[in-house]
Amino acid sequence: MAALNTISYEDGRLHIIDCTRLPTELVTVELKTLDECFDAIKTLKVRGAPAIGVAAAYSLALVSNASGAKNADEYLFELERAAKYLNSSRPTAVNLFWATARVLKKAKDNGDKSVAQLKAIVEAEAIEIQREDIEMCRKIGEYGLTLLSDGDGVLTHCNAGVLATSKYGTATAPMYLAHERGMKLKIYADETRPLLQGARMTAFELKEAGLDVTLICDNMAGMVMSRGKIQKIITGADRIAANGDTANKIGTYSVAVLARYHGIPFYIAAPSSTVDFSTPTGAGIKIEERAPEEITCGFGRRTAPEGVKTYNPAFDVTPAALISGIITEKGIAKPPFCENLARIIRGN
Amino acid sequence: MAALNTISYEDGRLHIIDCTRLPTELVTVELKTLDECFDAIKTLKVRGAPAIGVAAAYSLALVSNASGAKNADEYLFELERAAKYLNSSRPTAVNLFWATARVLKKAKDNGDKSVAQLKAIVEAEAIEIQREDIEMCRKIGEYGLTLLSDGDGVLTHCNAGVLATSKYGTATAPMYLAHERGMKLKIYADETRPLLQGARMTAFELKEAGLDVTLICDNMAGMVMSRGKIQKIITGADRIAANGDTANKIGTYSVAVLARYHGIPFYIAAPSSTVDFSTPTGAGIKIEERAPEEITCGFGRRTAPEGVKTYNPAFDVTPAALISGIITEKGIAKPPFCENLARIIRGN
Repeated sequence: MAALNTISYEDGRLHIIDCTRLPTELVTVELKTLDECFDAIKTLKVRGAPAIGVAAAYSLALVSNASGAKNADEYLFELERAAKYLNSSRPTAVNLFWATARVLKKAKDNGDKSVAQLKAIVEAEAIEIQREDIEMCRKIGEYGLTLLSDGDGVLTHCNAGVLATSKYGTATAPMYLAHERGMKLKIYADETRPLLQGARMTAFELKEAGLDVTLICDNMAGMVMSRGKIQKIITGADRIAANGDTANKIGTYSVAVLARYHGIPFYIAAPSSTVDFSTPTGAGIKIEERAPEEITCGFGRRTAPEGVKTYNPAFDVTPAALISGIITEKGIAKPPFCENLARIIRGN
Repeated sequence: MAALNTISYEDGRLHIIDCTRLPTELVTVELKTLDECFDAIKTLKVRGAPAIGVAAAYSLALVSNASGAKNADEYLFELERAAKYLNSSRPTAVNLFWATARVLKKAKDNGDKSVAQLKAIVEAEAIEIQREDIEMCRKIGEYGLTLLSDGDGVLTHCNAGVLATSKYGTATAPMYLAHERGMKLKIYADETRPLLQGARMTAFELKEAGLDVTLICDNMAGMVMSRGKIQKIITGADRIAANGDTANKIGTYSVAVLARYHGIPFYIAAPSSTVDFSTPTGAGIKIEERAPEEITCGFGRRTAPEGVKTYNPAFDVTPAALISGIITEKGIAKPPFCENLARIIRGN
């Protein structure tokens, strides 16, 4: 069994896996119009920063392919309007803006070409964005694979997987490559409350691809470690400070502390673009607090008293001191991260 | 606001809080017949070892009060049949057998008395069982209170509260006493996956009683500790080995490891009867594994893929080395527990 195709574009047709139907149904839908693309991003049918970027780029390719513009000016006007509209679908998704801006710039840089030529250029740029995403994930996988041994138990938290990218995922990339090469890993996936990305996404995609995955509740991770079932831990990252402090889904910090107590290496896997060199330490990372309902009625019915106070941080920050290595597509940074992240990513 | 009355018996009438209706509705129901009592225990309307024992004792009092027996033999036969029937409602609940056996023995020991006298004796024994339960909880509360300071943040896991006993609870007893005496605590309750006893029970009962309680997901405990919000941790126990190793709801071990990392004292609060001196260490405690559905479709809808492997231990064992003290109704045992548990509980 092979990994899922979260986003595929072939012969001008765009298909995505509808993540809102998971984990009960695996449904691939075709996105035909700009409105359908907007809706897919807004309603989280496509989710995960890299996947959103790729989907947005292909959305512009669809608009481009369908354009009836008579000249380059008309064409560029149409493309820019579509980009703005797409950007408003998820106003906090940095990768969305990045991808639409990149496609738009490519088109504008070729403003002297014919509409037919522009259409080919825009489509090629969207395909290139996805190719780069896959290549980035594959390289993270290759580097990460050097850290794993046949028979390892590997724990992950949340979903930094295929369903958030276009292939391989980030934290899951070493697992998929290991599987492709016949290595046996025993993966443990934290369900990841409150939104259960580990249960709904990670357990789903690894199982679909034929990997050996066991789903646990977040509070079971410590016991599983204490029983010697985990040799390595790999999670993704939302943002990495220059010193290696890493913001990721809530619960990652607890996993890192438990890993340290049990002497288990704890790795972060993320694109080098996740490292924010302008943020010196994790203290500079603001933590979003989310609505109480995610905790109090997350499973389809109310499971906590009406009006109870909650604390619902979306992320936590794992201090660099608890991190054994940061796996990027440019290599693995080991501590001290202050020096080694810059060396590996910026080559200085 | 005062703590809830989980079980109350007045003028021959037995009322319980129906725990299956929580946290959305606080409903007190009267149990009038043996069948209603049986059903209440079987369907978890009453749950928690001490509460089940008290409810079973009162169930026998109801049978006794309603008895039309003409002589002591007939009466005892009827009471014994009712006890056997009640015992079959939850065949693994040790406190249930203990309570019915105690009431039955009291009646048999008075087999030379009249039926009217026996009715009074049985009712008094049931009331005494509840009085002792309340007194035990209150003493745990008094001892536990000596460990708390005004303004403390206190974390608890699962429910060892009023809803599992007849008053005060065990882990919650110091919190209720602190509240009665005007001390301000800030309580954090782990929701406690998979069955969410923390969300459904602990957050509910503390909020109802007017305590300052904040509900968090289990995986947020580490972050909350790292932000300096927790000064003490108190949980209950299902079974304590002679050396202090403690089996309690899954996730307790992770909380204890996190506590150690953050330098926060971690206490167990439990009746001295929870200490099993015939089990030398936690290695001798068998861990029950429960059905996957508790993780994959716990609250009305499926949240994980069909057929996914799970690992669902109901309990974990926290090694004595991570425990700062064990609070019982006979005093607080501090390490080394091998000596001090026996000294405090057995007086040797």
